[in-house]
Amino acid sequence: MPRVTIIGTGLIGASIGLGMKKHGPRDLEVVGHERSLDHAKQALRTHAVDRMERDLAAAVEGAALVIIATPILAMREVLEVIAPALEAGAVVTDTGSTKADIVNWGRTLLPDTTAFVGGHPMAGKTDSGPLAADAALFQDARWIVVPDPLVPPDAVDVVVGLAQMLGAKPVFMDAHEHDAYAAAISHLPLVAATGLFRLARSSEAWPELSALASSGFRDTTRLTATEPVMAHDIAITNRAQIVHWIERYREELRLLQLEIADTEHEAELFRTISESNMQYAAYRAGAVGRREVDDDQFDTIGDISMMDLLMGGQLAERARELTRRSEERIAESERTARAAGRDG
Amino acid sequence: MPRVTIIGTGLIGASIGLGMKKHGPRDLEVVGHERSLDHAKQALRTHAVDRMERDLAAAVEGAALVIIATPILAMREVLEVIAPALEAGAVVTDTGSTKADIVNWGRTLLPDTTAFVGGHPMAGKTDSGPLAADAALFQDARWIVVPDPLVPPDAVDVVVGLAQMLGAKPVFMDAHEHDAYAAAISHLPLVAATGLFRLARSSEAWPELSALASSGFRDTTRLTATEPVMAHDIAITNRAQIVHWIERYREELRLLQLEIADTEHEAELFRTISESNMQYAAYRAGAVGRREVDDDQFDTIGDISMMDLLMGGQLAERARELTRRSEERIAESERTARAAGRDG
Repeated sequence: MPRVTIIGTGLIGASIGLGMKKHGPRDLEVVGHERSLDHAKQALRTHAVDRMERDLAAAVEGAALVIIATPILAMREVLEVIAPALEAGAVVTDTGSTKADIVNWGRTLLPDTTAFVGGHPMAGKTDSGPLAADAALFQDARWIVVPDPLVPPDAVDVVVGLAQMLGAKPVFMDAHEHDAYAAAISHLPLVAATGLFRLARSSEAWPELSALASSGFRDTTRLTATEPVMAHDIAITNRAQIVHWIERYREELRLLQLEIADTEHEAELFRTISESNMQYAAYRAGAVGRREVDDDQFDTIGDISMMDLLMGGQLAERARELTRRSEERIAESERTARAAGRDG
Repeated sequence: MPRVTIIGTGLIGASIGLGMKKHGPRDLEVVGHERSLDHAKQALRTHAVDRMERDLAAAVEGAALVIIATPILAMREVLEVIAPALEAGAVVTDTGSTKADIVNWGRTLLPDTTAFVGGHPMAGKTDSGPLAADAALFQDARWIVVPDPLVPPDAVDVVVGLAQMLGAKPVFMDAHEHDAYAAAISHLPLVAATGLFRLARSSEAWPELSALASSGFRDTTRLTATEPVMAHDIAITNRAQIVHWIERYREELRLLQLEIADTEHEAELFRTISESNMQYAAYRAGAVGRREVDDDQFDTIGDISMMDLLMGGQLAERARELTRRSEERIAESERTARAAGRDG
């Protein structure tokens, strides 16, 4: 029986479970591990997983694919605990909102007979927990896949296949590139929303302000509802990039402030506002400044590799192949070291 | 036949028209005036108004209630043009997003036989124009009413009645108080959203960034879609307050930036994030820090005054009453001036 293990069955983990039960092979077994007893029960009740395994190491036994969907800072310990229990040939991926630290942990903590491929589905919603989960959560969303050059391409294909199975569009990205982009487009909006809410909330006039708040305020501040552990872990693991983008945002606000304050150039302000409005309409229409991902490149590889892995037929073969590559890598690095020694 | 005139039939004006046709007296005639030929046709086609009147002064003839729903800066000229054509006893209101300038124009430009009562329905949506109009747009929204002390209370009651007829909750507020609050809860979010979008849009990586943007970025920036003339006029007529709140927002962001940058106190950051998250949940639940408006105070007065006015029965009587009050006010101010002359 093909088996996948989902570690952490909150909104994302449980949505992956629901999606895999819906679109995956009929006899697929989805094993869950979840620290929160409430979430564990909810994920079972909604059939996001077939069974829960309390022991983390035992949870990954026999699993061809392991998906870590815990908060970011918890992932390091998860990797340490599951490392000795992973099947040879297993592919491990994650769903964390930052990638550089996680990919580094995966590379250093997992045995060479397994492959870690970082992932980040760009989807979410205000509600959290398994009860908010939805098999269609990832439909048409981007799913970042980090193709570590040290990892065999077919392991990367497995994660591409996972994303495609759930209706998402896989996008390859370097971990550091991902974190820089995510800081601008995802983490800064989180800080901007939180700051806007905190400012209004700390006002003495908050009772009056909150009574006046309409959908505009609600939408602009809604990311304040991001799960606190998630928000905290994002900040800790992408600190420099976020600090950099807050600085640029504060400068952008200063420019707008100067334009609004300038009584001599009201036409200039109107030009700025109109320009933003037009560009925003183009962005929402998806028509301008948006390079479409070349979906063709993924057309067949992902699905096949994913199914192969889940079907288990090639598990042993994959393990041998991974071991061979690992040995080659060690031999290669020894050659390099020797060469460096000669040169030095 | 009772008649109201709506000047400017965009999203707000047309929504008021639809609501009044639905909830108002059966024989109510809604006259529209609209500069945009497209909007005029659309408002007619959707029956937001019964007829359009191209001539602005002619549009208010015989109207017991005139609602100005144009952009803010256009209101001054509208008031100047309609002033000589208004019926004695007519009540004039508006829907502008700022109030101090507008109330001042209403007070100085309209004849004493009429009454200007500023209003601001706190409702809207991303789409604009009469095709986006909805009779239920104001349902449960707050509708700010500015009870100018120089205006007879029954004129204020008419605007309260209008808000209630459309399902909104009227809230009395001083014009300057309104503008200070609106700057924090409505205009600053507009600037924050626009700044966030402009920053990402101006990045060289915008093609990649926009491809990664999920619903979080979309929601946080959606006020960038505010109609440019409306956004511009808000900034021009509430300049000092908005500049003040941008400054406070930049400072709030700096504090968050410092907490994120501080590697020594990660627990402190988590406390800040958790606190915001809890307070946000309370705000969204409507349970904490929110003084409920005392709806009882409006229970009967608004509807009755509104219907009275629309039914036209008391129009002549009201005109006489307004004239009498106006004469009293002139006599009073002359007495005050004489007294000041004696003292000086």
